[in-house]
Amino acid sequence: MDPKRVAKDTAVAVQNYLTYQAVRIAINQLTETNPGLAIWLRQFSAGNNFQQSEMYLEGLLKENKELGLRIMTIRQHLAEEIMEFMPEMVQTNIRQANMEHRRELLERMTQSPPIISSNPAESTHPELDANEHSD
Amino acid sequence: MDPKRVAKDTAVAVQNYLTYQAVRIAINQLTETNPGLAIWLRQFSAGNNFQQSEMYLEGLLKENKELGLRIMTIRQHLAEEIMEFMPEMVQTNIRQANMEHRRELLERMTQSPPIISSNPAESTHPELDANEHSD
Repeated sequence: MDPKRVAKDTAVAVQNYLTYQAVRIAINQLTETNPGLAIWLRQFSAGNNFQQSEMYLEGLLKENKELGLRIMTIRQHLAEEIMEFMPEMVQTNIRQANMEHRRELLERMTQSPPIISSNPAESTHPELDANEHSD
Repeated sequence: MDPKRVAKDTAVAVQNYLTYQAVRIAINQLTETNPGLAIWLRQFSAGNNFQQSEMYLEGLLKENKELGLRIMTIRQHLAEEIMEFMPEMVQTNIRQANMEHRRELLERMTQSPPIISSNPAESTHPELDANEHSD
């Protein structure tokens, strides 16, 4: 395990993801103000998987520098607004998801076959059933 | 722009990404200790794009619970080790990348076309050329 490499790769992945989100936001904004340009940007961005967001921006800046600059501004703004919450959010989410997986696993491992668990008393303590019925 | 939604989506994306990295780490570790299981995990994980990492883990836990638990532990460990550095890393990377794009754009915009810039005086002020030659 090399946490430094993973940290570096994760930062790049987040940068790509925020660029993708910035493009979505720009398309939404343009849909209101300039539908034609929104369609153009959607088409330009289609097929781009945003694994190479810097190359995407480089291409966009050559085609329409205002749009490129706008998306750069939006992603920087997004990073400033949301990144401070990421450590807590991600750690909490992973802890909770792991807990949930462990709970389900434990349930599966301790579960008797369905026909028994549907009425546990009947199968494990038939004598109690007999008592209940006799009361 | 809805930063809360973007924050939530980004946290999920990071969770998926760290699960993917945890699987890579587990495969690497197993390649040393249990090559057969490494191949099995590689095959089980192939074709999975880790956009649905909880479903992936659910499936893995049913097939091999030790491996599933191991990957859950690794991703939690990764989150604890690297997330604290993410806000600074991502913001710095985006600022730097944006600065670089702006620098390149400015360079392109202020650059004269190659044939002129190679000898600007010749094309823009032919009279100077004439003077130079006459001198």
